[in-house]
Amino acid sequence: MRAAAQVFDEYGLAGSSISKIMTRAGTTQGAMYFHFKSKENLARAVINEQAADLSLPERPEGLAQLIGLTFFLAREMQSNVLFRAGVTLAVEQGQVGLRDFSPYDMWADLFRGELEAARSKGELQDDVDVAEVAQLLVAAYTGSQVMSNLLTGPDRADLPERIGRMWRYVLPGIAQPDRLAELREVAERTGPAA
Amino acid sequence: MRAAAQVFDEYGLAGSSISKIMTRAGTTQGAMYFHFKSKENLARAVINEQAADLSLPERPEGLAQLIGLTFFLAREMQSNVLFRAGVTLAVEQGQVGLRDFSPYDMWADLFRGELEAARSKGELQDDVDVAEVAQLLVAAYTGSQVMSNLLTGPDRADLPERIGRMWRYVLPGIAQPDRLAELREVAERTGPAA
Repeated sequence: MRAAAQVFDEYGLAGSSISKIMTRAGTTQGAMYFHFKSKENLARAVINEQAADLSLPERPEGLAQLIGLTFFLAREMQSNVLFRAGVTLAVEQGQVGLRDFSPYDMWADLFRGELEAARSKGELQDDVDVAEVAQLLVAAYTGSQVMSNLLTGPDRADLPERIGRMWRYVLPGIAQPDRLAELREVAERTGPAA
Repeated sequence: MRAAAQVFDEYGLAGSSISKIMTRAGTTQGAMYFHFKSKENLARAVINEQAADLSLPERPEGLAQLIGLTFFLAREMQSNVLFRAGVTLAVEQGQVGLRDFSPYDMWADLFRGELEAARSKGELQDDVDVAEVAQLLVAAYTGSQVMSNLLTGPDRADLPERIGRMWRYVLPGIAQPDRLAELREVAERTGPAA
């Protein structure tokens, strides 16, 4: 699966093949087909396991942790090939006939957990719908990484900066006014320059 | 080019071929190759001409017009095949070796024009960077349409709703507080239910 992620990351979905992946994995045809019958199956595995090599927070703690998490993910996109290939394939999966929303739900659930913790701690404005905000953050993250890839290449050099701007303009719509300055400071401290 | 957009929209980039497009266009091989040498060239044309059938505002007028424009685009994505295929191909273009940021810049420039008009009319907070906000709106729009496609299909039934949520949470970060209630009302009036 990691060999598949490397090949997908390097050649794209269209340019990848089972035989390229077997060569990279140093495995035989029999062993490969025992686990994965097709390129589609391999793409599905990489999409579903995209977070396998990431250390994610063990329990939700609120907005500061959510902000830190999004910058952590932006930096992981720059170097963690399994994560990067999984995210890219999740966007392009229609090309191999897949239609799987679950990776987006997985991230939205993680973000929503942090937003619920933020609510318990009094960090959120009363009328904020945590499920809606979680979906919006995943959407803004998805579009940001697509644009970063096109503009600055697969290493996505400007992604942390784009995530920083996302927080700059989204925080005032979700955070309690008396927490805003402190949270903007968190976003600047853990952000692009960190 | 419109025949190509229909075929790309229906079969995806990987499932489309010059011969399928020729059949749809009712044209001969000679005529097709005179204009477009390859599937990649056709994809490029559809990406670059994605806005050809849209009536866009003639001059920027500010935040209310920008909000209306994003809902107009969300509804066009549901039915305008040239626009929808162009937007989808712009996201998946890496599959045919293209790397063209210009369609994103085109939309960001249009949005930035409205934001500059908004600034002249005193609608924006002083520290808002109009170029940054324009990029963020294009990113949030891009991710929203990718997720809407996966969850609700190519007709993107929930896209206007997703754009409504984007405005709900982004407006407080950009609009002058004394314009906020009125602009949120604009977003609700011209939004999902309209």
